[in-house]
Amino acid sequence: MNGAEALVRTLVASGVRTCFMNPGTSEMHTVAALDAVPEMRGVLCLFEGGATGGADGFGRMAPRPAATLLHLGPGLGNGLANLHNARKGMTPIVNIVGDHATYHKQYDAQLESDIYTVARNVSKHIGTPQETAGVAAAAADAVAAAIGPPGQVATLILPADLAWTEGAEPAPPQRLRSPDAVAEDRVIAIAKALRSGEPCGILIGGRACRGEELRAAGRIAAGTGAKFLCETFPARLERGAGIPAPERIAYLGELAAWQLGELRHLVVVDSKAPVAFFAYPDKPSVLTPEGCEIHVLAAPGEDALGALTALADELGVSSDESIGPDPSRPSLGEGPLSAESVMAAMAALMPEGAIISDEGITSSIFAGGVTAGCPPHDWLAVTGGAIGQGLPVAVGAAVACPDRRVIAIEADGSAMYTFQSLWTAARESLDITVILCNNSSYSVLNMELNRVGAEPPGPKAKEMLDLHTPDIDFVSLARGLGVPGARPANNEELSAELQRAFATPGPYLIDCVIPPIL
Amino acid sequence: MNGAEALVRTLVASGVRTCFMNPGTSEMHTVAALDAVPEMRGVLCLFEGGATGGADGFGRMAPRPAATLLHLGPGLGNGLANLHNARKGMTPIVNIVGDHATYHKQYDAQLESDIYTVARNVSKHIGTPQETAGVAAAAADAVAAAIGPPGQVATLILPADLAWTEGAEPAPPQRLRSPDAVAEDRVIAIAKALRSGEPCGILIGGRACRGEELRAAGRIAAGTGAKFLCETFPARLERGAGIPAPERIAYLGELAAWQLGELRHLVVVDSKAPVAFFAYPDKPSVLTPEGCEIHVLAAPGEDALGALTALADELGVSSDESIGPDPSRPSLGEGPLSAESVMAAMAALMPEGAIISDEGITSSIFAGGVTAGCPPHDWLAVTGGAIGQGLPVAVGAAVACPDRRVIAIEADGSAMYTFQSLWTAARESLDITVILCNNSSYSVLNMELNRVGAEPPGPKAKEMLDLHTPDIDFVSLARGLGVPGARPANNEELSAELQRAFATPGPYLIDCVIPPIL
Repeated sequence: MNGAEALVRTLVASGVRTCFMNPGTSEMHTVAALDAVPEMRGVLCLFEGGATGGADGFGRMAPRPAATLLHLGPGLGNGLANLHNARKGMTPIVNIVGDHATYHKQYDAQLESDIYTVARNVSKHIGTPQETAGVAAAAADAVAAAIGPPGQVATLILPADLAWTEGAEPAPPQRLRSPDAVAEDRVIAIAKALRSGEPCGILIGGRACRGEELRAAGRIAAGTGAKFLCETFPARLERGAGIPAPERIAYLGELAAWQLGELRHLVVVDSKAPVAFFAYPDKPSVLTPEGCEIHVLAAPGEDALGALTALADELGVSSDESIGPDPSRPSLGEGPLSAESVMAAMAALMPEGAIISDEGITSSIFAGGVTAGCPPHDWLAVTGGAIGQGLPVAVGAAVACPDRRVIAIEADGSAMYTFQSLWTAARESLDITVILCNNSSYSVLNMELNRVGAEPPGPKAKEMLDLHTPDIDFVSLARGLGVPGARPANNEELSAELQRAFATPGPYLIDCVIPPIL
Repeated sequence: MNGAEALVRTLVASGVRTCFMNPGTSEMHTVAALDAVPEMRGVLCLFEGGATGGADGFGRMAPRPAATLLHLGPGLGNGLANLHNARKGMTPIVNIVGDHATYHKQYDAQLESDIYTVARNVSKHIGTPQETAGVAAAAADAVAAAIGPPGQVATLILPADLAWTEGAEPAPPQRLRSPDAVAEDRVIAIAKALRSGEPCGILIGGRACRGEELRAAGRIAAGTGAKFLCETFPARLERGAGIPAPERIAYLGELAAWQLGELRHLVVVDSKAPVAFFAYPDKPSVLTPEGCEIHVLAAPGEDALGALTALADELGVSSDESIGPDPSRPSLGEGPLSAESVMAAMAALMPEGAIISDEGITSSIFAGGVTAGCPPHDWLAVTGGAIGQGLPVAVGAAVACPDRRVIAIEADGSAMYTFQSLWTAARESLDITVILCNNSSYSVLNMELNRVGAEPPGPKAKEMLDLHTPDIDFVSLARGLGVPGARPANNEELSAELQRAFATPGPYLIDCVIPPIL
């Protein structure tokens, strides 16, 4: 068989059975291989950021990674921002980037560029096979690197001639490695800190934001009185009634410093110690107070569940000490729409098992509070801060979890980076409800313009943050891509639209025209 | 003044007075500086590919480069594909990429990434000032590198604290360097080849595709009987009735080899010797026949006009030997739309001085022929082969040339990479007519799937190249972004729409539903 088919068979054997793609000429043999390998599903995206963000959403929700198929350096470039988010969120992704034939590169044809340097920005692993017989092994290496633990972005640069030449064979399947065990003395030292009587916090991130890890961490926090915290932008946070509920560290450094202000010990599980999202004149970069000791219980790739279980045992924390929020929902609002009322309506009506892709920026500030007592759901945040991941991640999550309702909370600014994803949602009949918070502004930047001390802003600066002239009509945009939608005039209409959207298969967009919260 | 203001003042002093931008928090001081420096115009884009493509279109049409303002590594990534095109087309661009404050980088915050590696893919020059006092000099260096000659992409990575700190001063203005003179013996040797009696060709590219350079090359070709050729995807080709008309080398290697098949000498002016766009099994990468000698008259950065003038003198070519096509226009079609009839209607009706941004892919194959005798116009091609530049380049060209009509020939597939640009066209009231050739297919890839020998393609492969399910409604998409449009049912309606669009200020989109030509 040729290199392309061996590649696809190797991916499938290792459990990589979904490929989000926007291919070109140099990837045509890999596309053709889809018919030879029926287990591989191709999901077509109109823009590469949709493909990479789709793979990110898939990898957060599925027990196995997705692949992407991208066209040379420019295709990878278009996908880079969402690969950045995946890297920061430690989502496993296997990128296949087609390249010119090995012998053609010397001619510096129009699409020739240095793919490796672009890939390096986001990839912990880059494979560059040089002969057809090595393609499958390189694919297997990429899968192994991607799945980890920890999960990471792995990129395979595949020259076209290696894809089309015969003489390849699939490589053996790759399996998740066991995480590295955490040494007992580390657990004992941390237990001692938690029993010290000094103010303590437990900060979870990564894989510790769900499943048994989340419950064990919640038990420890409840049993020791430690403040229970979660990283600002978790890749996937399991939450809702009855589920241990950490406080997410605030995006605003001032608020975060207030959350962390008393702590003398911070126990960190599969996360980084908290730092400010940006630097600001005369504001600190490190958010923990001076003198607060950071204790890493489990770093990414280490056995967080084992460490948390050992720590709970060491502390004598019983298994019923974790108490999540009671079931509760806000009531439906009336009258004019606002960011708060839109989030409340979503919380009042969202179905159990919803997956929420949150890129609402300032408009979704209220979302966490109002959904705390909702039926269990997953929350997917903008892990790397690169805007334009919300809709692609929603697509990927919906492909991974066809039996669950996906809700994409979008802002007008953020939605416009990768709006093309709605076409894929329509094509694949994905159950995605887009709640578009349309305040005609890069609202967060109006706030940041003041926070960085660039004041008073003049009219030209303000104009660069304004999205009026023209106002964007998201219903019309969605319709253009085959997705129905509506613009509710008030909360009563919003409630009706949400009920209809949640009850109807397929994608739907609700364009909520609201004032900025700031 | 602070670093940001010194930066903007330095750009303005050197003639860089337009900045296509999609800023974030780390660029807020540069945005704020717009009010301190009224000579700088900010053009807001909803996606970074629109900003970089806008700067490309501007730089092709204006006598001075534009700047971009981008947000860290992910923002640069989103702009990378169109910077690739600019690099290949040698358009001068000055990128300003904001970065975290110097002291904040060590904390690996969410948006931290290795910007330098991404910039390297597209930038001949990368500046990384390390103190506020050095910002203006770094900006001046970037301008100097960008303007050349040859034009190139220069990137300045600007840490936020250097932008906000006081203590900077603007740097002196930068001027275009004189091109390197071409040695007389090279001219004499090439004249000898052109007089050899053997089959000769003259291939122009870059700056030689317009102005006096184009006319001198055309005179030499006419006077010597050499075949007059132009690179496949010129950045800006001046053409129309009375203007010397080189044959563009075909995208399809088979056709290009036929165009070049007899040549024994190819004189190259500001271009590369022709190579195949992609490699294909059993097809050559080099398009000139074996034994054809390549003579570089002027490489990029060398004095093409001086060399061409000297060559014409050496050959004794008189100044009236250049004859372009006679004025002619096709007649308007009737009945059902096709790619050919749409291009004919455009040619029949387009105004003098039109600027055509051509990303019609398979649908614009007929465009060159039918417009050959049209009133003088400029043709802007996809220089680097990275799709998604057509609409951004149209925006940039329209900003550079407010008195000329811009026509964007788009395909459905290519339009969807950077469709957000239409919003900027509406916001800035740009005179852009978008002719959308909507064949519901990545038509070129259907051809390529066969050409690379991946046949017979199965249903899964074909599905990845198909843009039905759902069909894209471009009128609805355009309306969502504030741009009016229509979908003509036949050629009669198309003619009426084109007449209206060309006569009306502002942007307009015509969604032409046509069958694929292949």
